[in-house]
Amino acid sequence: MPTPPAPLWFGGDHNPEQWPEETLAEDLELMRRAGVTLVTVGVFSWSLLEPREGEYDFGWLDRVMDRLHGAGIRVSLATPTASPPPWFTLAHPDAMPVGAEGTRLVHGSRDTYDVCAPAYRQASVRITRALAERYGDHPALALWHVHNEYGTWTWSDHCARAFRDWLRRRHDTLEELNRAWTTAFWGQHYSAWEQVLPPRATQYLANPAHVLDFRRFLSDEMLDHFLDQRDVLRARTPDVPVTTNLAFGDWVPVDQWRWAEHVDLVAIDDYPDRPGGSGDEQTAFAADLARSWADRVPAGGRPWLLMEQAAGVVYTGGLTRPKAPGEIARHSLSHVARGSHGAMFFQWRASRGGAEQWYSGMVPHAGPESRIFREICELGEVLGRLAEVRDADVLADAAVVWDPESWWAMGAASLPSKDLDYLEAVRQAHRVLWRSGRTVDFVRPDRDLPQVPLLVVPSLYLLSDRAAERLARWTEDGGTLVVTYMSGIADPTGTVRTGGYPGALRDLLGIRVEEMYPMAPGETVGMDVGMVREEVSRWSEHVHLTGAEAVARYAGGPLDGFPGVTRRRHGAGEAWYVSAHLNDRGLGRVITEAAGAGAFPEEDLDVVRRVGPEGVWVFLTNHGRHAQRIDPARLGLGPGSVDLLSGTPAEGLRLPGGGVAVLRGHPLTS
Amino acid sequence: MPTPPAPLWFGGDHNPEQWPEETLAEDLELMRRAGVTLVTVGVFSWSLLEPREGEYDFGWLDRVMDRLHGAGIRVSLATPTASPPPWFTLAHPDAMPVGAEGTRLVHGSRDTYDVCAPAYRQASVRITRALAERYGDHPALALWHVHNEYGTWTWSDHCARAFRDWLRRRHDTLEELNRAWTTAFWGQHYSAWEQVLPPRATQYLANPAHVLDFRRFLSDEMLDHFLDQRDVLRARTPDVPVTTNLAFGDWVPVDQWRWAEHVDLVAIDDYPDRPGGSGDEQTAFAADLARSWADRVPAGGRPWLLMEQAAGVVYTGGLTRPKAPGEIARHSLSHVARGSHGAMFFQWRASRGGAEQWYSGMVPHAGPESRIFREICELGEVLGRLAEVRDADVLADAAVVWDPESWWAMGAASLPSKDLDYLEAVRQAHRVLWRSGRTVDFVRPDRDLPQVPLLVVPSLYLLSDRAAERLARWTEDGGTLVVTYMSGIADPTGTVRTGGYPGALRDLLGIRVEEMYPMAPGETVGMDVGMVREEVSRWSEHVHLTGAEAVARYAGGPLDGFPGVTRRRHGAGEAWYVSAHLNDRGLGRVITEAAGAGAFPEEDLDVVRRVGPEGVWVFLTNHGRHAQRIDPARLGLGPGSVDLLSGTPAEGLRLPGGGVAVLRGHPLTS
Amino acid sequence: MPTPPAPLWFGGDHNPEQWPEETLAEDLELMRRAGVTLVTVGVFSWSLLEPREGEYDFGWLDRVMDRLHGAGIRVSLATPTASPPPWFTLAHPDAMPVGAEGTRLVHGSRDTYDVCAPAYRQASVRITRALAERYGDHPALALWHVHNEYGTWTWSDHCARAFRDWLRRRHDTLEELNRAWTTAFWGQHYSAWEQVLPPRATQYLANPAHVLDFRRFLSDEMLDHFLDQRDVLRARTPDVPVTTNLAFGDWVPVDQWRWAEHVDLVAIDDYPDRPGGSGDEQTAFAADLARSWADRVPAGGRPWLLMEQAAGVVYTGGLTRPKAPGEIARHSLSHVARGSHGAMFFQWRASRGGAEQWYSGMVPHAGPESRIFREICELGEVLGRLAEVRDADVLADAAVVWDPESWWAMGAASLPSKDLDYLEAVRQAHRVLWRSGRTVDFVRPDRDLPQVPLLVVPSLYLLSDRAAERLARWTEDGGTLVVTYMSGIADPTGTVRTGGYPGALRDLLGIRVEEMYPMAPGETVGMDVGMVREEVSRWSEHVHLTGAEAVARYAGGPLDGFPGVTRRRHGAGEAWYVSAHLNDRGLGRVITEAAGAGAFPEEDLDVVRRVGPEGVWVFLTNHGRHAQRIDPARLGLGPGSVDLLSGTPAEGLRLPGGGVAVLRGHPLTS
Repeated sequence: MPTPPAPLWFGGDHNPEQWPEETLAEDLELMRRAGVTLVTVGVFSWSLLEPREGEYDFGWLDRVMDRLHGAGIRVSLATPTASPPPWFTLAHPDAMPVGAEGTRLVHGSRDTYDVCAPAYRQASVRITRALAERYGDHPALALWHVHNEYGTWTWSDHCARAFRDWLRRRHDTLEELNRAWTTAFWGQHYSAWEQVLPPRATQYLANPAHVLDFRRFLSDEMLDHFLDQRDVLRARTPDVPVTTNLAFGDWVPVDQWRWAEHVDLVAIDDYPDRPGGSGDEQTAFAADLARSWADRVPAGGRPWLLMEQAAGVVYTGGLTRPKAPGEIARHSLSHVARGSHGAMFFQWRASRGGAEQWYSGMVPHAGPESRIFREICELGEVLGRLAEVRDADVLADAAVVWDPESWWAMGAASLPSKDLDYLEAVRQAHRVLWRSGRTVDFVRPDRDLPQVPLLVVPSLYLLSDRAAERLARWTEDGGTLVVTYMSGIADPTGTVRTGGYPGALRDLLGIRVEEMYPMAPGETVGMDVGMVREEVSRWSEHVHLTGAEAVARYAGGPLDGFPGVTRRRHGAGEAWYVSAHLNDRGLGRVITEAAGAGAFPEEDLDVVRRVGPEGVWVFLTNHGRHAQRIDPARLGLGPGSVDLLSGTPAEGLRLPGGGVAVLRGHPLTS
Repeated sequence: MPTPPAPLWFGGDHNPEQWPEETLAEDLELMRRAGVTLVTVGVFSWSLLEPREGEYDFGWLDRVMDRLHGAGIRVSLATPTASPPPWFTLAHPDAMPVGAEGTRLVHGSRDTYDVCAPAYRQASVRITRALAERYGDHPALALWHVHNEYGTWTWSDHCARAFRDWLRRRHDTLEELNRAWTTAFWGQHYSAWEQVLPPRATQYLANPAHVLDFRRFLSDEMLDHFLDQRDVLRARTPDVPVTTNLAFGDWVPVDQWRWAEHVDLVAIDDYPDRPGGSGDEQTAFAADLARSWADRVPAGGRPWLLMEQAAGVVYTGGLTRPKAPGEIARHSLSHVARGSHGAMFFQWRASRGGAEQWYSGMVPHAGPESRIFREICELGEVLGRLAEVRDADVLADAAVVWDPESWWAMGAASLPSKDLDYLEAVRQAHRVLWRSGRTVDFVRPDRDLPQVPLLVVPSLYLLSDRAAERLARWTEDGGTLVVTYMSGIADPTGTVRTGGYPGALRDLLGIRVEEMYPMAPGETVGMDVGMVREEVSRWSEHVHLTGAEAVARYAGGPLDGFPGVTRRRHGAGEAWYVSAHLNDRGLGRVITEAAGAGAFPEEDLDVVRRVGPEGVWVFLTNHGRHAQRIDPARLGLGPGSVDLLSGTPAEGLRLPGGGVAVLRGHPLTS
Repeated sequence: MPTPPAPLWFGGDHNPEQWPEETLAEDLELMRRAGVTLVTVGVFSWSLLEPREGEYDFGWLDRVMDRLHGAGIRVSLATPTASPPPWFTLAHPDAMPVGAEGTRLVHGSRDTYDVCAPAYRQASVRITRALAERYGDHPALALWHVHNEYGTWTWSDHCARAFRDWLRRRHDTLEELNRAWTTAFWGQHYSAWEQVLPPRATQYLANPAHVLDFRRFLSDEMLDHFLDQRDVLRARTPDVPVTTNLAFGDWVPVDQWRWAEHVDLVAIDDYPDRPGGSGDEQTAFAADLARSWADRVPAGGRPWLLMEQAAGVVYTGGLTRPKAPGEIARHSLSHVARGSHGAMFFQWRASRGGAEQWYSGMVPHAGPESRIFREICELGEVLGRLAEVRDADVLADAAVVWDPESWWAMGAASLPSKDLDYLEAVRQAHRVLWRSGRTVDFVRPDRDLPQVPLLVVPSLYLLSDRAAERLARWTEDGGTLVVTYMSGIADPTGTVRTGGYPGALRDLLGIRVEEMYPMAPGETVGMDVGMVREEVSRWSEHVHLTGAEAVARYAGGPLDGFPGVTRRRHGAGEAWYVSAHLNDRGLGRVITEAAGAGAFPEEDLDVVRRVGPEGVWVFLTNHGRHAQRIDPARLGLGPGSVDLLSGTPAEGLRLPGGGVAVLRGHPLTS
């Protein structure tokens, strides 16, 4: 097995099986022009590899692998289990997913499988083993890419059985489950395990603790499916890393912290849905998450890779919007800046048919004579010059807690407001830090806390006693903690902590919240932060001080004059509380003040520092519209640093709107 | 059996089974502080009382009953049939409700049962009998509370069979059903009873007569389920009143007039969804309905009780909004003013878990050290002073027809406008009367009409010949009748009366409507009412005068200059017709003019007069924002009356915005 | 068999079976007053004709037929197969339609049948044969009206079998199907025919080629059902024409071009959903389509008839809006102007019950003493005077391509924009031509192109190589071709043509589109057409000139200054391309310029020329609000022409807003 080569990975999903034979030759020539180093092959190829149960046809894939190898391109070889073949449905109807209302799906799209069905689990292992046998020694093989974007839910009987097994492990006894789920409410007490079902269609509101455990179960069950395959692959090729590409969205029941412990490389797919600066922020958010997932596991960090992004367009949900000139490179380099081992795309060549025939490709429908392919080639060239940065560390200035379980818990149907939005709360915390030029690490709430001066905890709905203690200790040791509304509300089962919000954090924060005042869409009140009146929408709270002091107060509305932001000294640190959904500028000002960093700068400059044995690198992205003059000294760089992209000295560099620079140099000795 | 005690009922749903053992002691102490007199126990306790089929565990409930009794608190003991236990689903899958599309639901929420299923009906009677046996002699028992908020629909085969049985009773012969449903339209003629099904999923629009009869059937079938239990309870405890708490909404197929004939006490749940004055109006509407349901039954009136309301918040659908200071008392007293025998809440203690963990309680999550609990204690104290008013009569100034069947009929998919809204038409009639300081009785269209000078008939879509005659006679005898658009349109089967609208009321009103002119959202025309131009939206009609005179005319639009409001003398009375959906002020002006009462006053003062053998009481609620000075003489009170709440003389009383007073005195002798 | 009589057809659906016996006598008297010549009988009468399987009851229908004949009224006799009787559901549950999610529907509405079920197909033929036997010789019989508004989808197992049979015929081999559907994408490769299913519920996006073929299949399968009945009827009554009334909408999977080849008379139902001028345009659009379907079949033209329209109201979806005075006649005459052999209504008498009890009738609920019935009588009188125009040809000035398959293909879930709307693109092309006073023929893309100077091709997504060649040859021969965005994009399987859009038309148009720039709702850019800046919304494209010249350029936005509209000379003709969704005025200006016809006139005058052996007729409709003076010479009429409606000379005629005139005369000899 070759060790992974030094260059950054650059390429995309490659599906020559969708094209005439002669297209492959053109592909290889274009890949050479673009500087492609890695392609993903075979993601949905099961029905071609095994056209009938037990009959394999590897000929076409052999040719693809050999030709790619001949062209010097490495392969991320996928197991095709995300799309069982049509024959599989007919042979194993019980292995199709079943909806909450009992609808059993059939093939006709992708991802149509019941992850709990024994027949599917066995078939997955069989095709994985066959691939491992066939290609384990192939010289093009660089990476195993298991499955694709795990995320198919099912409420089947197979799932019911597996869910109960999982619940027995989590809750030990049925009485413990009854307690954790508060089944005394609405007469849901279970008197035997077989009465416990997935949260199927029922007359009225579901039990939120039931739903929360179901999401946890789905994450673990899918992880089991991944591990089945990983173990087969590791046994055959111990030196080839195994990964799977994680999708991101409310529909994905994957706890990335737990999954990251089991992959050799954290791979993500990233599809920002906004153009311009907002898309830049979304990109930075995704990359910071991925790096954090990769780093924050007990056994130490591992590499991560942007496995999919759109080539030519931004998908906004309603329409595809062409990326502006330079946007392809800017997004890709934002990931590389944050530690990605490259920049991969879905897909190499835009498809002519199928459900995604209007998805973009590195080679668009218009062909290589196109702006997109020209920008792809330029990006390939730039990435070729950045290999040296691959293993350098990323230095963070602040941290934000990320907790998928709180996200899931806040997806319940009956919170005090439909407008509570965990993801937006986390995004906002990240956004205001990013806008102020900081690099953000995400941290998981159930592990050691980071060595940064500032930790923001947005709407951490679920909080264990131990995690609360850890936050207190971290603050005591000198950290600045900023907690926002709806944190510490419930224990990990989702049971509300009584006696005043925010439950587990009352003492640390020195406050007691008596009532919540959610606000209707369009409704606002003021919040006086320093001399400036900021705007509150969606959420406010009636806060009592029990040791903290008020830093900002509500202005107007039923809470006029009451504390809105509070601060309490705790040991060598400070614990802040933000009781309202502030506008970005308001939250930015609070965080800036908490960090003791003067006014909230909105610099439109994304700055990421990397450091390695041989030097430091500063990635600069101007996500505004106006050019900015760069001062290397202010960035902590000593004289003589250069921009790797333009090849010019950093001193006096003028970065145009939308532009990127990568300064290499040495730290200023102060 | 003790006779019900004199005090007003005050308390809420009490669920100690959801809490640790020690919470009960705290509950009793807090109930004592709050002056609680009654709690509802056991609403959803089936799975705890009968954890396995036929195995009962009453120990915990024995303790709760005994402890409450020891604390001097009476119990409204619920039968738990609204939530069959999880084991029941597995034992009787055919007793789960089935949706119109064939989806069979399972446990996991509440209310998941098929009211037509024999197994469910039998199990309901069994657990009811077991409770009656166990607690029939318990000294705490004050009231039997059957089930909870009837309202679960089902389209199952059990339901099909029961529906056919009901239809045979209603229509005698199949040919009669064919005629009533106009099955000649779209080829729906039935040639055998077994062809008749519930209105299940079909290709296109359902037959509205079919759907209307199905709603009637569901009401009767649920009533049957109630009567099963009532009869068991009455047999065991003839002196303990039996009730069930009625929910209110489009999804509830309960004809309250018919149900009220069979309960010993009319109980309602009331959840206004708007804050401030609008919520006050919603509260008055619910209370006036409940009193009317309780009074307008053949055998004479019976008591009624507000069984559930929210303690600390208003649920608006999208968010929970804290009640403003004083709002808890104001809503509660609005019910008591209108005859409720008390003010009960859902719930005593806000839950920590379950689907309603964010519903409020008399003891909120924050605990007794809270504004909410303080206001609860103040309310308990006030109610303690109002026991004397309990049995006094409520005097109404006007009446409005309420007809759930017309509501259901106007829920059909294919009326001339999607914006026709029966409930809003009734609410509007009530609202403008309430705003003018009148107390409103509701009346059912198929019984004797009331002894008030003014009767408003809003959008009474279904009207029998007999009911039409009754309206004519009532008018002839000197009443002022105000009928609004879409009344008298159809006979009780929903068949349109041809020859010109409003069908059965053409002669009485002296008009003939040739065409309807519904209006699009945002579209308006004028209506000249006296010298003032009011606004019409949603609905207008082309009216011909055939004996009536025009009182107001359309201004603008295709009906410019045509009659909009008409009046016809009939015997000693007058019959008015309002052909359009007027704005509130416009309808108020029309009604005021019809009542001969001068300008339409919007006084922001809710005035309810009560009279008993020992005096008169006037409940005053200022639902505006500005203080009002009260003149007892103008309210018909002689000198010496006092405000029971403040203990001060009524003379010179100044009622602040949102404030309440209860004046006790004697009538002015004029 | 009598040959069809000379008069225009005038009447409606007649359902005396829904009314008491005595109503029929009144009907006949009112029909006489109105001048009714034809009624449609029996559309949904199956459950009355065959109340039990195999038991027929024709007595009532005999009486209706005889009485109508006695009154001199002809009958369009319907087969009742659109509504199988309730007993049929119970006897053949497998013949009910099944939804994509597996829900099986039941009777309770209309149209509830599985068109692929053998039991339903056989029962349809049986009842048709029974009717043919019974009434084949009846003197009232003028027309067979098969079924009603074909359009019930099904995803059943019967359908799966029939779909596979159809696919075998279309694609020959399974490999050909795999290629056509690009099943290599997402692992959908089929290895046996039985794996192919209808596009049932699946996990994620469906394959658009799969869905497109399914719509084609449904059209053909329903056509088969029609042909079964047509053949039975033709065998019995070779001289009686057979038709079926075509509905129009996205839910109707009927390829009208293919169906028109198999009917003896093209019948449509037309329900414009907008009042006023917009409704006039919708009416003209429907009539132009119907005439074109009737004319453009290989064996030459056939008659067409407006079979259904609403009498008194416009259904807007949300509400029914009364037609303005004169609108009933204006819409009817717009159809007759465009060649309809009459004007029929749904329905004769507004129903009292059933799902459409609020649908209007020629005799409304209010009865004959009504504006509607008076206008119906006036229309009957007018139509009586227009019989002479029945067989005259309609002269078109321009043509527009209509392709239902492109409509279906553009209904796919994953196009570059959700706002792409094929129907609106065709409507817009028709609308701007209509507004300029032109009469429009529609043409099918796979047949000979018309002899008009101007051909507009709006968003013709699917295009075969042969059709592309035909367009090129037509242009070369001197035509002016105007192609709009998203044309020629894909081949008939829906596979995108690569190398630059618009695929098959690149060479003809002399352009190459590199990228699409869809625009978000509310977003606009400018387009400079001549000296005027017009507005672009929804859609724009990055166009390269490869032989064409730019006629208009984008102004603002990312495409600022790039070509927006282009022109290329080709042989004796010109090929234009419109790359953006222009506002109406902008598109009108482009088309006017392409046609070399000076400024774009918005005359508010609908002008249709008819020509026959004995003269010419010009139908004029003033769809604006202001009167217009008519100049017969400008319309090409010589001296002495008269208005058939008013009986006055055409010279000096002043046509009021909303008015209609039918000028008879002879062509000006120039």
